[in-house]
Amino acid sequence: MNALLIVAHGSRRKASNQEVCQLTELLEKQDHLFDHVACAFLELCTPSIPNGLLQAIEKGATQIVVFPYFLSAGRHVVEDIPAEIAKVSLLHPQINIQLSQYLGASPDINALMLKQAKLALKIE
Amino acid sequence: MNALLIVAHGSRRKASNQEVCQLTELLEKQDHLFDHVACAFLELCTPSIPNGLLQAIEKGATQIVVFPYFLSAGRHVVEDIPAEIAKVSLLHPQINIQLSQYLGASPDINALMLKQAKLALKIE
Repeated sequence: MNALLIVAHGSRRKASNQEVCQLTELLEKQDHLFDHVACAFLELCTPSIPNGLLQAIEKGATQIVVFPYFLSAGRHVVEDIPAEIAKVSLLHPQINIQLSQYLGASPDINALMLKQAKLALKIE
Repeated sequence: MNALLIVAHGSRRKASNQEVCQLTELLEKQDHLFDHVACAFLELCTPSIPNGLLQAIEKGATQIVVFPYFLSAGRHVVEDIPAEIAKVSLLHPQINIQLSQYLGASPDINALMLKQAKLALKIE
C-alpha cells in the first residue's frame, strides 16, 4: 500500500495550516497511485512528521512518499525533514520511505506562475 | 510596457535567494506577455519590493504584475506585500500595479504535486 505525506512547515496562523489540510483533501480525492494521502508539519502544528508517518504505517502503508511543500532547498528540506524521517525509519526499517523533490524544484512551476500572473494582467 | 515582479520572502541562505533569481531568469526567457521580468524580496535580500518596482518603472513599465512566490495567504501576502506596493503607488499613481494571486492559490498546484510525488514512488 502506497501513502503520500505532504509536509509543510507549519504556521502560527491557523488558516495557513488549514490551507495545507484542504489541499491534502483535494489531492486525496484525485486520481493517483496513492492509497492514502495525509499532511504533517515540521513545527507549530500537528501531526508531526513522525506521527504522520506512523499513522500511515498503522493504516497499512508499506511505501510512503514524503513530499516537502516548500519552495526552496533550505535547511528544513535538506536537513530537518530527513532527520524526522530517520526517526521512523529506525523504528520501522521494513517500511520504504522515499523523500520526493520539494515543490519549488518542479520543472513545471514556471508555467504555472506565468499562467497565474497573466490572470492579473489587464490587457488594454 | 508590462513588467512582472516575482516577490519572494528572502532568506539568510544565499542559495535560496539564488533559486528565486534563477527561476526569474528562466521565466524571462519564456514566451509570455511581459516585457520585463525581475524578482524582489520582502526581507533579508535585495532588491526590496519598492526598489524592484522602481527599477521596472525606470525601464519603462506602465503596468506591473506583482507575483507573491508564497505558499499560503499569511501576513506577508495579505498585509506586508500590499504595504510595500503602496509605497510606490503613492509616488507613481499613474503606474498600474496589480497584485497577482500567490503561488499556493493556483488551482494547478495539486496536479503539479502529484506529478512530482509520483517520480519518487517506486513501482514494484
